[in-house]
Formats: sequence, structure tokens, C-alpha cells
Amino acid sequence: MTFVNYFFRYFTISLLFVVSQANAQDTKPYKYPQSDIITIHSKVLNEDRKIYIHYPKPDSTNLDQRFPVLYLMDGENHFELLAQYADYLSRPDVLAIPKMIIVGIPNTERRRDLTPTASITDYSGKPDSSNLTKPSGGNENFLKFITTELIPAIDKGYKTKPYKILAGHSFGGLSSINCMLTHPDMFDAYIAVSPSFWWDNKYLLKLADKKLEKGSPLNKMLFYSDGNEGGSSSFFHLDLLTFDSLISNKNLTGLNYMYKHYPTETHMTEPIIAYFEALRFIFKE
Amino acid sequence: MTFVNYFFRYFTISLLFVVSQANAQDTKPYKYPQSDIITIHSKVLNEDRKIYIHYPKPDSTNLDQRFPVLYLMDGENHFELLAQYADYLSRPDVLAIPKMIIVGIPNTERRRDLTPTASITDYSGKPDSSNLTKPSGGNENFLKFITTELIPAIDKGYKTKPYKILAGHSFGGLSSINCMLTHPDMFDAYIAVSPSFWWDNKYLLKLADKKLEKGSPLNKMLFYSDGNEGGSSSFFHLDLLTFDSLISNKNLTGLNYMYKHYPTETHMTEPIIAYFEALRFIFKE
Repeated sequence: MTFVNYFFRYFTISLLFVVSQANAQDTKPYKYPQSDIITIHSKVLNEDRKIYIHYPKPDSTNLDQRFPVLYLMDGENHFELLAQYADYLSRPDVLAIPKMIIVGIPNTERRRDLTPTASITDYSGKPDSSNLTKPSGGNENFLKFITTELIPAIDKGYKTKPYKILAGHSFGGLSSINCMLTHPDMFDAYIAVSPSFWWDNKYLLKLADKKLEKGSPLNKMLFYSDGNEGGSSSFFHLDLLTFDSLISNKNLTGLNYMYKHYPTETHMTEPIIAYFEALRFIFKE
Repeated sequence: MTFVNYFFRYFTISLLFVVSQANAQDTKPYKYPQSDIITIHSKVLNEDRKIYIHYPKPDSTNLDQRFPVLYLMDGENHFELLAQYADYLSRPDVLAIPKMIIVGIPNTERRRDLTPTASITDYSGKPDSSNLTKPSGGNENFLKFITTELIPAIDKGYKTKPYKILAGHSFGGLSSINCMLTHPDMFDAYIAVSPSFWWDNKYLLKLADKKLEKGSPLNKMLFYSDGNEGGSSSFFHLDLLTFDSLISNKNLTGLNYMYKHYPTETHMTEPIIAYFEALRFIFKE
């Protein structure tokens, strides 16, 4: 086929396509603001990881503008929600938060990546042999992936500012608190929506008590919350209250924190309101 | 320029684009759930109207399933938010609302379509001559467009159930209440986020008092709310309180209503939480 033949073939196909679209009662796909999927081969995790990235529309009058980044665990659950909040809340007629980049990390092995210790105990603290075959305790490695592979890739490919937020729900909330305790300098702000403090006989509540020295500096923003996860005397709510008094009693200098309890929300509806209020809180100034 | 020259130029640009994409480390566009844009020529409004439609992913095991529909004013502001809520809140692991269709109506002449009377008075009730050139008072005609042209088009093109919700914010909230008062049977549920009751010397508060007979039946769901729009003694908040006591005093049989005041939200951040709580309220059973 010569180039010229190729051209005519291409041109004819294009023409047909235009005509058939016009017949279809003028139905067109709605265009959402652009987001990317990139694939990173992680040496740390020894696997490929898909990553979702939502970023502000390029502003031709300000092409050098750079943006804070929110890293979101359970990307398959809440990436679109956070992308929507980032867009809407930074609109010129809303201006509740700055324009920002949302990086969603969907799971491959959620329990392996988002728990701080290897454990087979269930939420009541009893061993559960059905957990014997489920890997856990890889959160340190997962955070290493974020800091040595993911963040550099995002900083290379997108117009990032240094300001970074880590956000997660349930096991993701556990990971967010674990990161703040073990690598506080990785992020500037931490969001933990209904963190699963029950994990491994309340391992993280004990770690928090050990790691956070009374009156020591922790110049971070921290938002944590719970919903109605079994009522006001449930282990879930009691664990959050324990964490909240621990944070309050430690009197950490520079820590700006907010605890919200949502008694009318379930474990799964809570992220809608909690992520909204967390963003409002972190960018309140 | 000949066709062949044009072709070579086009071809070279395409090639460059493909190469630069390939270098970008396997970047693909993130795929949002599909939504449509259709264009309806409205005889009632004598203009073309673009309409946004978001619908559940077809379920191959249940192709006959039909869905309630939410009609949303100010489609350019809150369509993506409502589409996100409809998807997330109906997930099998969330199940707070049924799967539904969201129909967003972006504005052409907002003030004309979303106000119930022709008026040049401002929010304080004083005439403002700068409003002389701005058309207003077309809400009755706009509702006629919805009921005689838009709803039939949606019912024809999508798998709708008869259950319908009308939702709006600000002037859109005014329109939602106006529809409930003047054509209560058009919808099964009404959402009014910060309705602009100040319009035309509180025309709609007076109309509500006149139209709603004490103890009469109104088998509807109704959600209304306000944020912090000038503080607790602002006309905005006082108008909502007036409407709320009016609704309460009228003691309408069958009306299931909820009033929410969000003192920490602005006029523009409020829709995020109000639309969420409105959906939770309407589908609470």
C-alpha cells in the first residue's frame, strides 16, 4: 500500500465515523477531567503496580505552577471521590483548598501491604487459623515502595510541590498512623479514616504510646475519625477514643489534629464525609 | 498545500506524539465510568439544551433492571459529584442507596430558568436597576421543559424507574421548592440545598404558606439545608428557619422531611455534604 492509498483509506474511515456519530441522536461521551494510569515496576515489592494520578488542568497563564500531592491507599475505592473533591473544592468560586494532585494506589495484596505486623489474630484478639495462609505485616516494605519508588516517579512525571499527604481508610488508616509513628517525616499530613486499631491485639495503640514522647515535637497535621462500627461501646469506637486521649495527653508540640466521630455513618459511607472534612481541616488556613 | 503535503505533515506530527507518549513510562488515561452528553432541541425553551447522563454499568445477569432518576439543576457544578455518590453509595460493599441514574442539566440562562418570578429586587428586597436587563421568572417554563421534553427523552433512552428526584442548589434549590409547591406530582422527592428564599421579597415563603394547607396530604420526601451564609442571624439562615417552622406547623400528612444546617460550610462547600446526606435520607429505608 502506498502512502497515498493509505491516506485515502484513513480519510474514508474517518468520514464514515463522523457520519455514524451524527446519526446516533447526538449522544457523545461526557468528558471527565483527565487522570492517568501509570505502571511502575517495584523492585521493593517485586511486582508491577498500577497507579492512578489525577492532576489539575494545565493553566496556560501559569505553566510553572506546582501542586501538593495526596497519596491515597485503597485507590480502587476512593480515588474518584478524592479526585472530585480536589477539583471541586479548588474551583475559583469555592476556593476551600488549593489545586492538588491525587495519587491513588490500588491494592494487589491489601492485607500484606497495609498491616504493620504479621498476625493471625482477629478483631477480638483471638487467633484465627483461617488467617494462617494470608500474608500480613508488609507495611514497612510498602512504605519503602512509596518513599523510594512511587514518590520519585510522581515527582519526576508531575508538577509536584514538596507538601505531601498520606490518606487511608480502615487498614489504610492503620498504615497512615503507622507511617506517622515510624517515618513521621515522609509526609506533612496524615489522614486515618476508621483506622483498624484492633489489628494484632492493638499493636499500633501500644506503638503510639511508646513512640510519642510527651511534649516532643511533631509538626504535622493529623485527622482521624470513626463511624458507627457497632455502636458507641464497640471496640472500634473505644479504640479511637483511646487513641484520641493518648494524642491529647502526649501534648506534642506543633501537632495540629482533629478527631471526628460520625455516629450516623457506616464503615463504608464514612469516607465520603471524612475525606471531605479532612481536606477542609488540613487546608483551613 | 496539497492533500499529500497535508498528509505528510499530519503523519509526522502523529508519529512524534506516539513516540513521546511511549517514552512516558506506560501512561494510559484513567477510565471513568461512562456518562453521556445528549443534546435536546427544546421547543418550550426555543433552544438546544445539552444534558449530562450518568447511569449504572450494565449488569449482564440483569439486563432488565431499571433505576430511579435524579434530575439535577446546575449540572455544570455538581453532576460529577452526584455521579460519584450514585456509584459509590450503591456499591455492593456500601449499599446505602440503590443504583440510580443522574441527569445533570447545565445552564444556558440560569437566572431566567431558575427563578419563579420576574424581579429586579436584590437579596435585601431593594430594586437593583442593574437587574433590569437580566431575564428572570422563567421557572414555570423550565419545569415545562423538564416534564414535557426532558423526562420523556430520558425515559425513552435509558432504563428508568418511575421514581424521580429533583435536586438543586441556591437558585436551583428555589426551583426545587417551587416545583414541589406548584407541581408536587412531577417528582417523588425534592432536594433544596440553600434555596435562595430571598428572591423577590421572599416570594416563595409566601407561596408556601398559601399553597400548603394545614394537615393536607403531601406524600413526598423533602430535604432542605443551609450553610454559613453570613452567620446565624443572616437573612439566608433566618429564611430557612422560617421555612422549617412553616413546614413543621403545616403538619402535612405523608411528608417525610429533613432540615440540616451546616454552620461550618460555605454556600459553595455545603453541596458536598448536603447532597450526600440528602441521598442517605431519601433512601434510608
